[in-house]
Amino acid sequence: MPSGTPQPAFVLVRPQMGENIGGAARAMWNFGLDRMRVVSPRDGWPNEKAVAMASGAGRLLDEAVIYDSVAESVGDCSYVFATTARARGLTKPVVSPQRAMEIAREKIAAGEKVAVMFGPERAGLENEDIARANAIISVPVNPEFASLNLAQCVLLTAYEWQRQSVQVIPEVVELAGSEWASVIEVEKLSEHYEGRLDEAGFFFPPEKAEGMKIVLRNLWSRMPLTRSDVQMLHGILRQMVRWKERG
Amino acid sequence: MPSGTPQPAFVLVRPQMGENIGGAARAMWNFGLDRMRVVSPRDGWPNEKAVAMASGAGRLLDEAVIYDSVAESVGDCSYVFATTARARGLTKPVVSPQRAMEIAREKIAAGEKVAVMFGPERAGLENEDIARANAIISVPVNPEFASLNLAQCVLLTAYEWQRQSVQVIPEVVELAGSEWASVIEVEKLSEHYEGRLDEAGFFFPPEKAEGMKIVLRNLWSRMPLTRSDVQMLHGILRQMVRWKERG
Repeated sequence: MPSGTPQPAFVLVRPQMGENIGGAARAMWNFGLDRMRVVSPRDGWPNEKAVAMASGAGRLLDEAVIYDSVAESVGDCSYVFATTARARGLTKPVVSPQRAMEIAREKIAAGEKVAVMFGPERAGLENEDIARANAIISVPVNPEFASLNLAQCVLLTAYEWQRQSVQVIPEVVELAGSEWASVIEVEKLSEHYEGRLDEAGFFFPPEKAEGMKIVLRNLWSRMPLTRSDVQMLHGILRQMVRWKERG
Repeated sequence: MPSGTPQPAFVLVRPQMGENIGGAARAMWNFGLDRMRVVSPRDGWPNEKAVAMASGAGRLLDEAVIYDSVAESVGDCSYVFATTARARGLTKPVVSPQRAMEIAREKIAAGEKVAVMFGPERAGLENEDIARANAIISVPVNPEFASLNLAQCVLLTAYEWQRQSVQVIPEVVELAGSEWASVIEVEKLSEHYEGRLDEAGFFFPPEKAEGMKIVLRNLWSRMPLTRSDVQMLHGILRQMVRWKERG
């Protein structure tokens, strides 16, 4: 059973190598997409090499819908993208993957069905296929070197879909069994160091002592310290003192 | 000679298969990145399989700098990212590829050197490697299925770098040898249709005629018509009239 998440369908048009169909399935499922359509796969269907390559994403192949023509494959969709390097003589909007997935999200949220077509490995989509699309997706590759294969193109498009999901948090800090130190804990750490370093003669010459203390206080407060960090820093200082006292 | 574009260095840490080193080079160069560093490649250096796989991106391998240790490989950098699925017991910020490349752009614009480390194929980076990084990049893959390989991880990171470049235009329309129609041309098209359809008895019943005309006018004006489109639409109508007149 496909997942219930609303999403675009990815349509592989006349794919040649089974390995690439399997690679495309993996690329989709890496980013939670599981609606694959396949138009006239060269080596028939089912395809053993595709299954072998897909491994953990094999369900997408079992559930893929196979069509004889591009027209049928996107017949139920109200908005269709064609991925291609160039529009070759057709007047058509050309969008980045980012903009394309923004459009797809808006349309899908409004209840529309959206498809993204990917061409065969060698030649890419024909003009006849592209003419059925509402817009073209062009990946902004290096003009001196464009060598994306089918699975990579699927991967980047699927990544863009997922990137724009609200669930992707741009930054979290993984706290390894600790919590952030409180201001008072950092303050006590600062006092501990200031006191001992004063005894040790660190703040020298005297006229610079005040400035040095401020710099040191500021150092502690701008560090993202956990309670464990604070404990370790106390421990380091205590150990230095013990070492000095031993001898 | 590496390109002059300021950019992060990509560091492959203890890569195993030459094919994956070559694939990583292709992935980088697809998005205009060409500063590769390699730490202790398993099969020595140079690596024939890497060269064969890299094809058009072989220059990156020729110019790659080889190191014996992770510490040396990022020694000149002031900010280092580690790509990994998990922070495994280290307190460290975890950022999305998007946020990571935003940070990288800011730092590089300020003249800092930034590196991104990618671990070996099987095991990924060791905690010892990750401890040298300022932050972790975690790609937001499907928690039920995470199967990105080394070249794919490099590809997505390089894509994010490029995606944020100001040169990527989110949408352009490729005009196949035509220009956009002017408002006056669309207006004339609208009048042509309205006039002929009136003669043909299209606007019926009479009490609905005004509303139908507004709908039709609106239809033309919301279509992104080129001059060629307008000519073709005029031609269609003229032909229908001729056909009717031939009778």
